[in-house]
Amino acid sequence: MKLQATQENLSRALNSVARVASSRSTLPILSNVLVKTVDNRLCVAATDLNIAITHYIGTKISDSGAITVPARLMQDFVASLPPGVIDLTLEGTKLNIKTDRHDSTINGTSAEDFPIMPKIKKGTSWSVVSKDLKKALTQTAIAASHDEARPVLTGVNFHTENNHLYAVATDGYRLAEKQAAKLKEEISITVPASAINDLLRVIDDSDEEIQIINDDQQILFKGSDIELTTRLIDGSYPDYKKLIPEQFGVQAETGKKELIDTVKTSSLFARESAGSVVLEVEENNVNVRSIASQLGKNTAASKAKTKGTGQITLNARYMIDALGATDSEKVFIGFNGKLEPLVIKGIGAEDYTHVIMPLKS
Amino acid sequence: MKLQATQENLSRALNSVARVASSRSTLPILSNVLVKTVDNRLCVAATDLNIAITHYIGTKISDSGAITVPARLMQDFVASLPPGVIDLTLEGTKLNIKTDRHDSTINGTSAEDFPIMPKIKKGTSWSVVSKDLKKALTQTAIAASHDEARPVLTGVNFHTENNHLYAVATDGYRLAEKQAAKLKEEISITVPASAINDLLRVIDDSDEEIQIINDDQQILFKGSDIELTTRLIDGSYPDYKKLIPEQFGVQAETGKKELIDTVKTSSLFARESAGSVVLEVEENNVNVRSIASQLGKNTAASKAKTKGTGQITLNARYMIDALGATDSEKVFIGFNGKLEPLVIKGIGAEDYTHVIMPLKS
Repeated sequence: MKLQATQENLSRALNSVARVASSRSTLPILSNVLVKTVDNRLCVAATDLNIAITHYIGTKISDSGAITVPARLMQDFVASLPPGVIDLTLEGTKLNIKTDRHDSTINGTSAEDFPIMPKIKKGTSWSVVSKDLKKALTQTAIAASHDEARPVLTGVNFHTENNHLYAVATDGYRLAEKQAAKLKEEISITVPASAINDLLRVIDDSDEEIQIINDDQQILFKGSDIELTTRLIDGSYPDYKKLIPEQFGVQAETGKKELIDTVKTSSLFARESAGSVVLEVEENNVNVRSIASQLGKNTAASKAKTKGTGQITLNARYMIDALGATDSEKVFIGFNGKLEPLVIKGIGAEDYTHVIMPLKS
Repeated sequence: MKLQATQENLSRALNSVARVASSRSTLPILSNVLVKTVDNRLCVAATDLNIAITHYIGTKISDSGAITVPARLMQDFVASLPPGVIDLTLEGTKLNIKTDRHDSTINGTSAEDFPIMPKIKKGTSWSVVSKDLKKALTQTAIAASHDEARPVLTGVNFHTENNHLYAVATDGYRLAEKQAAKLKEEISITVPASAINDLLRVIDDSDEEIQIINDDQQILFKGSDIELTTRLIDGSYPDYKKLIPEQFGVQAETGKKELIDTVKTSSLFARESAGSVVLEVEENNVNVRSIASQLGKNTAASKAKTKGTGQITLNARYMIDALGATDSEKVFIGFNGKLEPLVIKGIGAEDYTHVIMPLKS
């Protein structure tokens, strides 16, 4: 292998893939990145056997070849080089990296032993615009569970209904649903949230179509210079639709930033009550109160357009997450009583719904 | 107590002092900040019994008074409020804090139990311009030891010689000395580096004179709105001057940023050798090499004006610290052989000297 790449491109590729490489694996080669010429591009790839990410960059290739090198060293080293052209030359398993002022050799391991995830053969092909996919996944992945006791809740579910793609995640305490795009194909799969978070790091806010292929085992996301393959989560996703109320006895419209600030302030007093705060809708106001405690107490008010009055006890962090993910300056809040779920929607951005279950108070 | 302050001022004062308050102390009141009216200003203070920091802010006082409140809660709470006027009212031991939209009560503890550090009665009075003090302490405190086995090395030593104030710190492996200012008074004291780091957080780059008073037990730094008192470290400071070579068989002048970059890059390969790199002066070049290791190897070159040739093995982190603290675009490097100390000085900024002891290689 002998080629020239720019430091900027190589560093970006290494940053996309290197975090998947794990030094904690029992298989030492999994802590390496694969560096391999493919046609006229250089492929930089890493895998932990559950997920594989590949990033392609344009290079000037004189000789093809492949090697794996320690991911962390390679990433840190290339990041530390000044911008400009880098010469990569492979001699045996030694990768020589040269710039004007640097002459380095990184000891590698043969690429032959690098594990490749199986190809998806008879899958469903579909596509979503990169920025729409990114938005939908950013808004939903936060609600996925971290508890492996119910594996299906640790993923983001994709499904279609009436020719629309929906992304949804829930940990049983809160739920986020996004109507993401029009889609003819029939989809019903659940992708690990950890893979979604890796995907979010490598796709951008562009208008590029991300090509997607899935069977019932795996899914591949493919952009012009990235590929991410991950295993799917087995099991049927809960029928969550019935959890989302459609009529509300108590409603308010208020400024999102204002409400986030008041919830944050009140949550400082809520350490003893595990972060629970009381949301109270009264005429023309939404109040957030901390539960009276040893530390003191707090009430913060936001002007609001209201209908009905009532109060509900909520986890402050879930409120902050939900409001932060909502895509508008003004938000709608609705609930039916202190034991019923609360719904948050952005005004003018109703394709995103966030539901939070109340706490007992 | 009843007064009005701005959120900006109160938050800044709390940020200066609150980190001294410790929730790990056996004396619970030490996790509180003192909030007290003094003449027409509000004093916000915290102490851990070794150091005390006070920050004064301008306020509109209707009623004088004093209370202590949990430092972390008060700091986080005031930081979370929007900019503007805050009303503080004390009722018993409850501190009520009000803005347009917030109404909060923090439960406090009587200010009577708050420990005050003893006043310095017959001390030496001197002063240094804030920005000069800040610069000198930033440049030297990095070389202080963290090892309590020799307490005097965990401090920054201030002493005068020929009507100049010097600040110096050394951990036995490296040494930083700054000729800081002209000074008539005779000084010879050692201030804990931890207190110096706290001081650096509260003084700014202004032309204000910082008034300093010390006896042989304590030192007080006093600006227009801050006061920091700390205990001194007992014991005589080592006679370090003889460690600094004045003649050099091997010399180089090179770009500081270039050299930092090459040391950083080489240090990535130096993990197995605990971060040691070889600095090599050859004609017209300073090279930095990592020790050949299992991972690979690296050589990086910087153009330089040189005299003599030779090499020396050094701790990369000490090199990066020293170069980072040096105040010029070009640096001078000099040494006399691989077992003798290395001296780094900024070209045109020769009031700062950094010495690094070599590693055996």
